[in-house]
Amino acid sequence: MEIKTRFTDSLGPSAIRAITTMINAKTAAGIAVTSFAGGMPAKEFFPLKELREITENIFDNEDGQVIQYAPSTGYEPLKRTLADFMKRFQVNTTSENIQIYEGSTQALSYITRAMLTDGGAVVVEDPSYTGALDIFRSYRAEIIDVPMDDDGLNMEMLENALKSHDVKFIYTIPDFQNPSGRVTSVEKRKKMVELSEKYNVLILEDAPYSLLSFSGNVFPAIKSFDKDNHVVYIGSVSKIIAPGMRIGWTVGSKLFTQQMVYIKMIDDLQVNNLSQRQVFHYLSEYDVDEHLETVRKVYGHRRDLMVEAVRESFPEGTKVVVPEGGMFLWLELPEKYDTEKLFEPVFNENIAFVPGSKFYAAPGRSLNCMRLNFATSNEAAISEKVRRMGEIIASLK
Amino acid sequence: MEIKTRFTDSLGPSAIRAITTMINAKTAAGIAVTSFAGGMPAKEFFPLKELREITENIFDNEDGQVIQYAPSTGYEPLKRTLADFMKRFQVNTTSENIQIYEGSTQALSYITRAMLTDGGAVVVEDPSYTGALDIFRSYRAEIIDVPMDDDGLNMEMLENALKSHDVKFIYTIPDFQNPSGRVTSVEKRKKMVELSEKYNVLILEDAPYSLLSFSGNVFPAIKSFDKDNHVVYIGSVSKIIAPGMRIGWTVGSKLFTQQMVYIKMIDDLQVNNLSQRQVFHYLSEYDVDEHLETVRKVYGHRRDLMVEAVRESFPEGTKVVVPEGGMFLWLELPEKYDTEKLFEPVFNENIAFVPGSKFYAAPGRSLNCMRLNFATSNEAAISEKVRRMGEIIASLK
Repeated sequence: MEIKTRFTDSLGPSAIRAITTMINAKTAAGIAVTSFAGGMPAKEFFPLKELREITENIFDNEDGQVIQYAPSTGYEPLKRTLADFMKRFQVNTTSENIQIYEGSTQALSYITRAMLTDGGAVVVEDPSYTGALDIFRSYRAEIIDVPMDDDGLNMEMLENALKSHDVKFIYTIPDFQNPSGRVTSVEKRKKMVELSEKYNVLILEDAPYSLLSFSGNVFPAIKSFDKDNHVVYIGSVSKIIAPGMRIGWTVGSKLFTQQMVYIKMIDDLQVNNLSQRQVFHYLSEYDVDEHLETVRKVYGHRRDLMVEAVRESFPEGTKVVVPEGGMFLWLELPEKYDTEKLFEPVFNENIAFVPGSKFYAAPGRSLNCMRLNFATSNEAAISEKVRRMGEIIASLK
Repeated sequence: MEIKTRFTDSLGPSAIRAITTMINAKTAAGIAVTSFAGGMPAKEFFPLKELREITENIFDNEDGQVIQYAPSTGYEPLKRTLADFMKRFQVNTTSENIQIYEGSTQALSYITRAMLTDGGAVVVEDPSYTGALDIFRSYRAEIIDVPMDDDGLNMEMLENALKSHDVKFIYTIPDFQNPSGRVTSVEKRKKMVELSEKYNVLILEDAPYSLLSFSGNVFPAIKSFDKDNHVVYIGSVSKIIAPGMRIGWTVGSKLFTQQMVYIKMIDDLQVNNLSQRQVFHYLSEYDVDEHLETVRKVYGHRRDLMVEAVRESFPEGTKVVVPEGGMFLWLELPEKYDTEKLFEPVFNENIAFVPGSKFYAAPGRSLNCMRLNFATSNEAAISEKVRRMGEIIASLK
């Protein structure tokens, strides 16, 4: 008799990773899939040449220490560089307030583990990032979804949630939110900090897309208004450099940071040495702004092409939220459409997207919505395959 | 008011990582410390030149995909290579039974999370690896320590533990056990599999030191006797290549492997791409046996030097377990000594070791024991600093 684990008895694969697995299966079988599904940045703009050069220099200048065990606290030069990097978001901090992780998803896992060991509730934006929802579910959190206005969470409903539940933290993506593309206003950022103090609750500010602003306008982080250690900022280089680096970081109090170090000591000892050095050298010695300028221009153009293709080919009455940054287009089809049912016929023609319902804590929500990633695919694929989606949808009426 | 996390309220740093932090603080202040404490392999023998060459080739031959998001299931060529590698331990398996992690500690964390979400007991060898004990404690496991004979766990006491407790798994390090240096006999390996079937309990076989056998004699893994998916093998490249690679793996049933993939999807998405490729190329294209032969010779020689220095300089009546492989010497000083109290005066002279009590689930055990790592330090340091330890101990009588 085979022994089953308990944790995963009731657990399936995370929604987006499951779609990715289906895509990989087709790719392995030699079938090309155009994916508007995952959160993949455009790999053709990754600074591969620079990273090659950096890596050669590391091997030239360091001895075996570079692949020896290293401190759980992370690579100090990288932490100093990230502390400086935080000025972009008007956050003043030092390396003692920073911890490094194998990507920002791991940061979110550690924080959830730390805060929800004995249960409790979390507030999420409605809709929110599926990966975060999966983490919260895996720790059996009570998930309270608070509706968003165009400028961020509805503050009255947020306060009601904080009044009526034992909320451990508020999870928010203030810049070019995933999946809605919305930006939380500066006024609401300040108000959220006020509420976090009033109800003594933590805010997790997940900010992977902040620098993907098409106007170049970067907002002050919620963390920049934090006076009493009620905000933890979560950063990632996945959309700034590349996801394969697996480097994320948090900015929090010294106590919080120490607690995250303890979890790292227990959980997997340390972050990859070489990756930490690669990111350190790239951020401190190369022109990351020039790189971001290129990425912004390309993504902005791809957004335009995608919006155009949707408007031309999707069913009449489809609403498009046109985001000013990030990677995602959020579409609301007319009520009669169920995008979960559209997935299969579209995927049969080797095109992938994420049904809107995947971004909600409760089942059956926004069945007529979908998220399209405009960053990954090239211009020709966007123009052609989005129109093809429109035709498939029309043919199913 | 600052918000505290719950998980870590009662949690300190892991014992060995805490010592490492103290050492790092001295090193940062320009003070050289001779550490016999951690589990660091000898960095001067890491295959740095080969890894440099491998990494250049990767950057030459691959595009941005090498730093793009990648499957949670891990890098397929690496998994095939590891499946083949398992033949060294007489385990026949395929890539479908293998999952990759950011080091074997992460594997242990995931498995513990999977098995102990709803509580339960684990059996550990007495003494055992502190890092594993820390993981089990962090999931609030009931830890049942079963005494060891010279040839592995005492089988009667193991069976009694399985009879009387709701045991989720048995955690064992059969080869050159950490910290005792013992090897579990083939007979007991078979018996453990029998018991795991009889009581329907999982065995976690943690095997980082298997190839560090000074005689070159590699034992069949417990997993090699497993007929009914009751054993999970945990491997690591930390002692075969280098710890900074952060690559570990498990060999288990397809169901188990799928469940680990789900946890990876939720926890941190995927393992570092570049590391997986580096390890794949090193294991499949370079002479790992020649490398291991060098390491074995050096470690065997260092063990001899350390045993000699201990016998010459430590208090009369000190017992030394002389291991036939691995990295650690386990010392039993006469009863009157308390190695926790010896730590400070020895560390004041910039020498570090791990007090024996750290390797026990219960407090206050084997206070007269200590673990010394003979692998990390060079020959001169071993001969000189171990004798210095003997002098310090003598002076404290």
